[in-house]
Amino acid sequence: MFVTMVEQKEIILPPFGRGFHLISNIIENSLSDLPNAGLLQVFIKHTSAGLSINENADPSVRIDFETIFNKLVPENSRDYVHVFEGKDDMPAHLKSSLTGHSLTIPIVNGRLGLGTWQGIYLCEFRYQGGRRKLLLTVIS
Amino acid sequence: MFVTMVEQKEIILPPFGRGFHLISNIIENSLSDLPNAGLLQVFIKHTSAGLSINENADPSVRIDFETIFNKLVPENSRDYVHVFEGKDDMPAHLKSSLTGHSLTIPIVNGRLGLGTWQGIYLCEFRYQGGRRKLLLTVIS
Amino acid sequence: MFVTMVEQKEIILPPFGRGFHLISNIIENSLSDLPNAGLLQVFIKHTSAGLSINENADPSVRIDFETIFNKLVPENSRDYVHVFEGKDDMPAHLKSSLTGHSLTIPIVNGRLGLGTWQGIYLCEFRYQGGRRKLLLTVIS
Repeated sequence: MFVTMVEQKEIILPPFGRGFHLISNIIENSLSDLPNAGLLQVFIKHTSAGLSINENADPSVRIDFETIFNKLVPENSRDYVHVFEGKDDMPAHLKSSLTGHSLTIPIVNGRLGLGTWQGIYLCEFRYQGGRRKLLLTVIS
Repeated sequence: MFVTMVEQKEIILPPFGRGFHLISNIIENSLSDLPNAGLLQVFIKHTSAGLSINENADPSVRIDFETIFNKLVPENSRDYVHVFEGKDDMPAHLKSSLTGHSLTIPIVNGRLGLGTWQGIYLCEFRYQGGRRKLLLTVIS
Repeated sequence: MFVTMVEQKEIILPPFGRGFHLISNIIENSLSDLPNAGLLQVFIKHTSAGLSINENADPSVRIDFETIFNKLVPENSRDYVHVFEGKDDMPAHLKSSLTGHSLTIPIVNGRLGLGTWQGIYLCEFRYQGGRRKLLLTVIS
């Protein structure tokens, strides 16, 4: 017989500036007593910020992420129809669908099963994104 | 003791034209009696359409999505080798790997835990994509 | 009463060359006795390779994926600050956040619920990526 559980928690991040930010520690510190095996899902309740997993060591990686995402989805294009919420709004929507709004991470031996170089990124695509809400769900 | 369950349902969407379409209502109406807490996974069984989450209010956002995705992955490029299924086929494959083919959404208090401005998008990348099949899985 | 289970397995892929590769068979052969209904999560423990789902039949599709991803994220751009790990390193990080690092696939009637034309891709973005580790988690 297996005892299975769904645990949920909403957390509110401090405001981050525009760019890509490592939030692995914030996520891990929000979760007490992870199960031995399961899945953690992290879901961001916004449409102008995203979540991703990437390199957790050299900050220059996150600088290049900001540069190249701005090249992929330029800010001052005449293409946009949706402009009334600011020049960073529509690009933020588009970028967030490229990174996605949720991550699912295996839980192994009571810890997040991330690779050695993997960290959790908050992708803040607005200049003043404010305090972002995350929903954490643990299935075990 | 926790009672856990996996519930599954396949639904078939009505045909949508090329573009980005809000299907939150279709998904929600397909699900009766959501559990108190859990995860909903929505999976599209196709390789030329995708799923995403984004802004659910202003239709101009979805127009800009179509415009910019066509810029990211242009239709009439000489680069493509895979052309025999029509000019919209290979770009559709590529775009669908950018948005992804599934979404996982937390279920909170018996409802989808989407943020205020979040809606579920069907990303139809073909002109005549036809009726798309979705697999809904609820873990609770 | 439902009996629920979390099963996990780490597998190591053989080294693949740079490009997009079908690994559906490797994944399926690693999983014995799938449950009747549930979810399979496939997670890659690296930041310079990704996972995706796409067309499983015509190899020319995977050639076009490599071509267009190289156009989206060019290799020899002066934009990059993070260059000391080789010219393919920073583009690989960026591409992997576009495809994502995990897939969640419904399990239906004891089999992966993929559509007819859907296959699982390893997206190897480095020239010498080596043996990549995958974590497989089955929730049922």
